[in-house]
Amino acid sequence: MGRFHSLIKFMTEIEIPDFNEILAAHNRIRRLIHRTPVLTSTSLNKISGAELFFKCENFQKAGAFKFRGACNSVFSLDDATAQKGVATHSSGNHAAALTLAAGMRGVKAHIVMPRTAPEVKKTAVAGYGAQITFCEPTLQAREETLAQVINKTGAISIHPYNYTPVICGQGTAAVEFLEEVPDLDIIMTPVGGGGLLSGTSIAAKAINPEINVIAGEPKNASDAYLSFKSGILHPSVKPDTIADGLLTSLGEITFKIIMRNVDDILIVSEDSIIKAMRLVLERMKIIIEPSSAVPLAAIIENREMFKGKKVGIILSGGNVDLTRLPFI
Amino acid sequence: MGRFHSLIKFMTEIEIPDFNEILAAHNRIRRLIHRTPVLTSTSLNKISGAELFFKCENFQKAGAFKFRGACNSVFSLDDATAQKGVATHSSGNHAAALTLAAGMRGVKAHIVMPRTAPEVKKTAVAGYGAQITFCEPTLQAREETLAQVINKTGAISIHPYNYTPVICGQGTAAVEFLEEVPDLDIIMTPVGGGGLLSGTSIAAKAINPEINVIAGEPKNASDAYLSFKSGILHPSVKPDTIADGLLTSLGEITFKIIMRNVDDILIVSEDSIIKAMRLVLERMKIIIEPSSAVPLAAIIENREMFKGKKVGIILSGGNVDLTRLPFI
Repeated sequence: MGRFHSLIKFMTEIEIPDFNEILAAHNRIRRLIHRTPVLTSTSLNKISGAELFFKCENFQKAGAFKFRGACNSVFSLDDATAQKGVATHSSGNHAAALTLAAGMRGVKAHIVMPRTAPEVKKTAVAGYGAQITFCEPTLQAREETLAQVINKTGAISIHPYNYTPVICGQGTAAVEFLEEVPDLDIIMTPVGGGGLLSGTSIAAKAINPEINVIAGEPKNASDAYLSFKSGILHPSVKPDTIADGLLTSLGEITFKIIMRNVDDILIVSEDSIIKAMRLVLERMKIIIEPSSAVPLAAIIENREMFKGKKVGIILSGGNVDLTRLPFI
Repeated sequence: MGRFHSLIKFMTEIEIPDFNEILAAHNRIRRLIHRTPVLTSTSLNKISGAELFFKCENFQKAGAFKFRGACNSVFSLDDATAQKGVATHSSGNHAAALTLAAGMRGVKAHIVMPRTAPEVKKTAVAGYGAQITFCEPTLQAREETLAQVINKTGAISIHPYNYTPVICGQGTAAVEFLEEVPDLDIIMTPVGGGGLLSGTSIAAKAINPEINVIAGEPKNASDAYLSFKSGILHPSVKPDTIADGLLTSLGEITFKIIMRNVDDILIVSEDSIIKAMRLVLERMKIIIEPSSAVPLAAIIENREMFKGKKVGIILSGGNVDLTRLPFI
């Protein structure tokens, strides 16, 4: 009883954005982002048995959909607030995206990164002009260091996913996708923290209530799957997947949106992810990061569910170290 | 005197296609090919100092622009001729493209390949359903074996570039490119046998007589450069370049067109080709073969020539063995 009571309380207290906020975000950022192309592949249609459409956020600025949310967050701030800069802890795409967006507005981005982050990521974030503070590679150290940075600078913390302006920004990819291919039966994203999935689900269900919103998640990082199936928010415990963009846990806001809007979450093996990534590189001639391959892996592991359907996949990003492709 | 006399004779006797034939080719093949997207990259604009547009023939069916010419050739044949099948000797993109086009028309493709061709190419061509005959890896063996195959089957030989329907098919990429970006100052392709360059030059100059048509060629396979600069057709002698699509010599038809229409050919180092290929993979998140990187390499080696110009590059193909990227 207690558990359900607190679940209900939790579910009713958290405010979730509506479709109008996503449309407002799109108006705010459309001149700053790339309107990414939608690609198709005859050979992947043959292999999957479905009719696939790929929204190429791997071509987005800073190499991932994250730029949409970061851009909306930075450009939603009033001038006085923006002048203090923005801050986050991240070793990945969100850090690069936030730094680039901050630079476009002419304000500082303070990034807390674990000192163990790959050199290629440190270089990328530094290249975009971030003020980087290194810390120990624990969540506690990251949060404490971020708090210190914010305390010192007055910068605004921009959470990578559990933050309404970020969720609304991520939802703009689905708006463009359904403008271009209005009759999708299913729209798919990977799920890590749930920013892309939750934003996509709000936009897609508002545009077409009949559409199915389905996420793919690595079996080795299946906290969103467990949370979705149980209705209880599970943290990500010792995730161990090549899909390094999907290691994080859902947040309270993204979880609530996902519970309300998402039709299913499918979990996939590491082997399927690598095979799907290789298929996209070889057949579509585009570079995606392993996280982006997860929805296609889910389709290939569940062919019957998708057979003959028009399926839209948001390819989340393309930031991968080319000297370390998993199949070399 | 004798040399000039035969040059003039040679130049006047060879018939070259006009723009209307390219438009007819486009009408013939437009439902069979992909209309490939044009991509841009803010970071490559910054690096090059020019405004670059990339026509992505690496996304074309069979992974290269070659499908345009092969398709136009196969679908230009009358029914009785087509029924005998088509034939060529090639270990590369033309073989795959011709086989795919033949399959679409329901006729056989006879491909002569050197037995030393990479396994990945043998597998690809076989996968498209070709009738493959292997031969020794010399030009003489290839031509003799092809003659035998044609003799036995009655198939029509489709030359990879020195053949009007192929040249017209290749020219259709420029038609689409200039429809999408009409105000290009310069249009660029790589040059090997000259099919893409000559078709592009006819289309581009017809659409906009002011446009500059410039090719890039590897310094280590600079027969087209030497031919262009001297006005005498030079064969390719011991080419040694990573751009394995550009090893061939110009043909008499492509040479004549290039002499008439092309504004310049720039030669580039192997190092520049590898660097340009890596830039495209990392910044644009798309996979191109080394040959496709040659025009960008030429821009980066000759920044002043391209500074501030709107430059269109036809990315010729994306068929590369991902386990053998040159920078790994």
